[in-house]
This record gives sequence, structure tokens and C-alpha cells, in this order.
Amino acid sequence: MSVQTVEDTTTSVDLGPAAALSCRECGHRVPLGPLFACQECFGPLEIAYDFSSYETEELRRRIEAGPANIWRYAPLLPVPADVAGKPNLNPGWTKLVKADNLAREIGFEQGKLFIKDDSGNPTHSFKDRVVAQAIEAARAFGFTTLSCSSTGNLAGAVGAAAARAGFRSCVFIPHDLEQGKVVMAAVYGGELVAIEGNYDDVNRFCSELIGDPLGEGWGFVNVNLRPYYAEGSKTLAYEICEQLGWQLPDQLVIPIASGSQLTKIDKGLQELIKLGLVEDKPYKIFGAQAEGCSPVSVAYKAGHDVVRPQKPNTIAKSLAIGNPADGPYVLDIARRTGGAVEDVNDEQVVDAIRLLAQTEGIFAETAGGVTVGVTHKLVKEGLLDPSLTTVVLNTGDGLKTLDAVADTGATATIRPNLDAFRAAGLAS
Amino acid sequence: MSVQTVEDTTTSVDLGPAAALSCRECGHRVPLGPLFACQECFGPLEIAYDFSSYETEELRRRIEAGPANIWRYAPLLPVPADVAGKPNLNPGWTKLVKADNLAREIGFEQGKLFIKDDSGNPTHSFKDRVVAQAIEAARAFGFTTLSCSSTGNLAGAVGAAAARAGFRSCVFIPHDLEQGKVVMAAVYGGELVAIEGNYDDVNRFCSELIGDPLGEGWGFVNVNLRPYYAEGSKTLAYEICEQLGWQLPDQLVIPIASGSQLTKIDKGLQELIKLGLVEDKPYKIFGAQAEGCSPVSVAYKAGHDVVRPQKPNTIAKSLAIGNPADGPYVLDIARRTGGAVEDVNDEQVVDAIRLLAQTEGIFAETAGGVTVGVTHKLVKEGLLDPSLTTVVLNTGDGLKTLDAVADTGATATIRPNLDAFRAAGLAS
Repeated sequence: MSVQTVEDTTTSVDLGPAAALSCRECGHRVPLGPLFACQECFGPLEIAYDFSSYETEELRRRIEAGPANIWRYAPLLPVPADVAGKPNLNPGWTKLVKADNLAREIGFEQGKLFIKDDSGNPTHSFKDRVVAQAIEAARAFGFTTLSCSSTGNLAGAVGAAAARAGFRSCVFIPHDLEQGKVVMAAVYGGELVAIEGNYDDVNRFCSELIGDPLGEGWGFVNVNLRPYYAEGSKTLAYEICEQLGWQLPDQLVIPIASGSQLTKIDKGLQELIKLGLVEDKPYKIFGAQAEGCSPVSVAYKAGHDVVRPQKPNTIAKSLAIGNPADGPYVLDIARRTGGAVEDVNDEQVVDAIRLLAQTEGIFAETAGGVTVGVTHKLVKEGLLDPSLTTVVLNTGDGLKTLDAVADTGATATIRPNLDAFRAAGLAS
Repeated sequence: MSVQTVEDTTTSVDLGPAAALSCRECGHRVPLGPLFACQECFGPLEIAYDFSSYETEELRRRIEAGPANIWRYAPLLPVPADVAGKPNLNPGWTKLVKADNLAREIGFEQGKLFIKDDSGNPTHSFKDRVVAQAIEAARAFGFTTLSCSSTGNLAGAVGAAAARAGFRSCVFIPHDLEQGKVVMAAVYGGELVAIEGNYDDVNRFCSELIGDPLGEGWGFVNVNLRPYYAEGSKTLAYEICEQLGWQLPDQLVIPIASGSQLTKIDKGLQELIKLGLVEDKPYKIFGAQAEGCSPVSVAYKAGHDVVRPQKPNTIAKSLAIGNPADGPYVLDIARRTGGAVEDVNDEQVVDAIRLLAQTEGIFAETAGGVTVGVTHKLVKEGLLDPSLTTVVLNTGDGLKTLDAVADTGATATIRPNLDAFRAAGLAS
């Protein structure tokens, strides 16, 4: 038996157009493998692709003829070409909803405001997109246990995808999550470990575990599979543009947890421009945080390039990452594109959840309350132009954060007769 | 001003191919209008269509070029041709999941078992399909308030659709529903009235209300708009066949609440055959109930044509209709097609929810536990052939019936360190 290096073990890996891992800081390239930090400078690794063989119109036709899920974009993702035939949850191709009622309420021109509603994914959050990529990498690298640290949505997404794809799963969550997210993470039958601490504690624990023999052979979707995993967020960019008729939006409002989603959406938009699938033009990216966990927003407003960690305290638990890994990149993108980073408090989050539900019939998670609330605030501040095509992300489902609107109930409780109904005064 | 008859008021109604209302019992036809019972014999009215102008292959192309929602089938529904451009929730085109892992567990041949997963609809139940039809009828007939009696899922679907489409809503539910369903019904901002009683009490109350001046001008989606509303279930038949490559399945397992869904799926399959969109061949339809509300199953097994009402007592609240209006038609279809009607108890429902989650990553509502549980039971009884193409419906989402699996939680709760994890014994 020969001693294998990373190079040896990964030469036979088929992850489609993914050519190598490349350091975002120093550009150092290494072959594809379960790695996440540059060996030269400890910068984050990301996927480098070889798209050189693609002809624009042929690629567009291939995408349009593809399945109604993220695998229509398989030629642009780190997955094998036959990915659509493998057992996975096939997330994506969620609705881009023209939100004219909401537009009227918050001062937008008609026809300009859209909600990208990722609550339509299999486990009702955008996490299904990223987990689907991690699963393919885990298959390629021969892992049999899938793991993650999670604020809840990811736990459910990993549990469900692992069950269907035939992996063991063991996921780690803070002990104080919403009941819906705990049950949804546990019902798929994997191991679910509650950690006495917040998400940053869970994350630190996972980093320890991955360096320990205890975690050997484990694929942590958001640690050693992170470069693959993170690419899933690009599909949001692809779908938004294709659903707008292969056009870039003028403005996007994206929630910030680790910041990865926002940076990968920008990467996806840049790819579409380079591939000629959309016409190049300026677009602005806006980041949205909850006031109770707003390290990036605070840094943005202070004009800093560095993000100072916070101890989270907000109902928007799926965004409650106090030490966001991609914070500096988010600041860079917001500034470079002419966007901004803004935050809203918990009361504004709840108001925005209700407003979206009552205008468009979309019941969003707290994270969706954050983006809608921030959108409204940015319009009032004059930072967002309500006459331009704007896409606001809803990344999760209201059923998972019922506590936020738990005081919402029946208007009246009555006996089953007309007199009782008349007395309640609800006849129109 | 002339006094208008039903005929006069409805001549200008454009509901696409819908030509008239026709009594299912005596065949008496009346013009389209907000009517549900035959004036001649009190039998139920349903939509009669004029499909005479359709050429099979042209129709198929038109459907395949349509949107990824139920409106691809607009030519076969009581809706105007431009329906896709109107504000509605655009439900449908949910996933048909090949369930090979589940198949292995319950004795099916590989590649033969499919889950039609309607939890992917906008409010995460099949009710979005039927409400979308009722909304178009309500627009056509000039109603401004939408109403319904509901076991929960319908309340959310009406609330959401009404909000987006610009209707006032006032919906009626039993007072003891799951919290998730109550919040989801209320969050869209319509009136939500809890009735002290069970679903059958709520239904009786609505029938009173509709005959009273208090309810004048109200569109009750499942009462005076019922003929339109009910047609939405046909889209499940259309989607299943198109997703199977324009083929009929051999066997279908469908939950029974009022029985309407099952009868309309059969109607949809018959239409596809008559239109030449699928090849004619025998198929068997199986109905699924919870033991705690099994009036149709009991009648089926006793060989009766009449369904004796029951007082429901089951965790499958979305199926808890003790006096199912379409029960006799369900019995007829099950017998005519060579299917059956079966029931499972609450423990089997919970086991089936877990089994589906752990094999396919689909977290179903209790109603999905009923159909999967009944499928398993029918295979064991030899009534369902596990070597034939079989589609099992999951009509709702597990997040709405968390109570059923509320004892599901973390495997362990630990301090954030490796020693604690080692002690928990979960390393693979």
C-alpha cells in the first residue's frame, strides 16, 4: 500500500466543472479534497471552475431544458453531470414572487419588487441548496457520516438529505432552539446533539471535533465540506436571473448570518456575466441583519473593514452568528456594488413578517422578517431606489419560528350558532 | 333595471372550458353560478366542460410549455385562460418522489413506489390547489369576502390566497386545532373564528350562515364555491401522470376526509384518458383513513353503500370529517377500480411519519402518515401489489402537526467539549 497524498486521493474525483480549490486570499491552488483552509496563508478555500468549453447559447438551452430544481445548473456547480439521477432532495427552482401588494405598502413602484421565496424548498429553507452540494462532495470523498453545526434550519436540511442519500448523520445545535426546528432536525432519525451554549460555541466545538480522531471520516458540511457546500448559494443568483428572463436585478436584499450566502450570490452573478448568460450592468447588494446580532451592519456603518464579534440576542436565530466568517467579504461587496448593510430590531422583524403575510400570503421565518424589514427601512432612508427591480430573499419558513408571532390567534371563539356569530360583530 | 336570474348573471362569466354545472345524481344542467346543490334532486353539482376543440398533441404541447404550477393545466380547469397572470399563490407542480428507500422497508419492488409530496405547496398542503380554483370563481361571481370551514390546512390556504388576491377573509375552525395551524391561519390578517365544537359542527354552522343574510355576498370555498374548488384536486391526477411520462399509475393511495379529493383524482384520470393524453388501462384507487375517523373504511369492509357518520377521535385532524359528503362516491370508485379502503390507528400513523422521514427525508403531516401506513398495511394484506407502479399522496406538512412526533428531540445534550461528546458515545 502506498502512502497517499491529497493529490493522489483526489485525482479520480468527478465533481463536474470543479477544477481545484483556490485560496480566496492568496490564490494558492490545491486539488479538490475535503479541505477548507489554505495551507499557505490559512485563507478560505473556494472552488475554481473550468467553464472554458461552454458556448453561451448552448449552455442556456441546456439549463432551460434541465429539471425544475438546482440541477438545471449542474454545469456550473461542483457536482457530477449525472447528479439529478442520484438520491437527493432536489431543492431549488423556488418561486420568484412579484410582490405588488407589498410594493404598495412600502413605497415601491408596481412591478419592481420581488420576493425570492425559499420556504418552498424540501425542508423549507435555503439550506437544502447548500446541503445538496455537500452531499455530492461527501459521496466523492467517501464519507459515510454527515455532520454540521446549525442554528436549526441546517440541522433539518442535513438530517433529511442524509436520510434520503443513505448517510448516517450527527448534527450539533444550540440547546435553546425553537421546538419546530428541533423536531424537524430529529424526525429524520439521525443523531441530534444539543450543545449547552450558543451557535458560536457549537461552531467552536465542531472545529475541535474535526481535528480530533473522534471526528475522523466525518463530513462536516459547513467545515471540511464548506467550499462545496457554500457554492449552493450561487443557485439563488442563477434562478433569480433566469426567472427575471436572464436579466440581472438592479438591487438585492440578502440576509447575513455567516455572510457566505451573500458572497456566493455575488459570485454567481459574476459568473453569469462572464458566461454571457446575462448582460453586464451594475447591481447593488444590500445585507440585512437583526439589531440583536448586527456585527456586519455595525462595521459597515462605522466604516470598518474588520467585523467585531457580538454575543447574539435576537429572535432571528437563523441569523444569530456573532462572529460571521465572511463578514469582511460582505463589507467589501456592499461597498463595491454601492449597496449597504442595515439592521432592524425584533419588533420590526415581527411587523415585517406580518406585513409580508398580509400582503402576499407568504409566511416567512424571522430571517424573512429581517430582509423585508430592512428593505422597508432602506427605502425610507433613501438608500434603496424603489423604482428599480429589486429582489428580497426569504430564506425560511414561518412555521419554524412560530414563537415570533405566537400571540396571533383566533379573532373570536364562539358557540356554533348564528346568534353567537352576530354578537361577535364579524359579518361584513 | 331588469330582474336578473341566475342565467342572466352568469352568461358573461369566463371560466375557460367550464360550460355549466351538472348534477352528479340526475344530470340536470344549470349555468355556471355560485351554486352547489341541484335544484331538481338536491344532488351535488359539478363542473361540466367543453373540451371538444382540443387536439391531443397540441394540448400536450401547450401543457408542457406552461408554467411550473397548476396553471399549466388551465385548459382543463374552470379558470380563465389568463389565470396565470392574476395575483394568486400559483400552487402545484410539486415533486413526485421515487421512494426506493421506503420501498425496501415495506416490501415494494425498486422503482415502483412514488410519493406525491404536496407539502411543497405555498402553504404546505394540497389545499392551495383547490383554493386557487375557488378564488377564480369568487372573482368571476363578484364576491369580496372568502370564507370556509376548515380542519386547519384550508384555513391557512384561504387566508394566504385571500391576502394575495385582495379578498377579505373570514374562516371558521374547530377550537382545538394544532397551534401551528392556528397561527398559520391567523397570520395572513383575515378574520379567524374558532367554533366550540368539532369540524362537523363547524360545517353545520357554515351551512346555516350561508342561508342567512349575515353570510350574503360571501364566497364559501367549500360550500357555494365547492363545485369550482373541488376541481383543483384534478391537478394531482394530471401532475402524477405527466410526471410519470404521461402514463397512468397502476395504483394510487389517497387520503379520505370528505372524499372529494379522491373522487376528483379519479375524474382527472378519466379526463386524461378521454383526451388521449394517456393510454387507457386499468388502475386501482385505494382510500386511506385513520381508525379514529373511519366511516368510509368501515362501510367498505361491511359491504355497505351508505356511510354511517362517526364522531372523530384521531391525531389525523386534517382527515377528521365524521360525515364525509363524498363517502358513497369513494366506495363506488374503490370497488369499481378494484381498490379498497383501509385504516390505521394513531400509533401506526406516527410510525409511518417516522418511517417516511427516515427513509426519504420527507416530513409528512399526520395525513401522510395515514396514507403511508395504509400502504404498508395493504401490502401486508395482499391487497396492494408491490410490483406495480404505485403513487402515495402526502397532502400536508409535518411542521403543522408537530404534536404527533413531539417526543422527538435531541439524542443527547452536552457541554461544548470533546470529553462530553466522548462520554455521550455517539462517535461512529
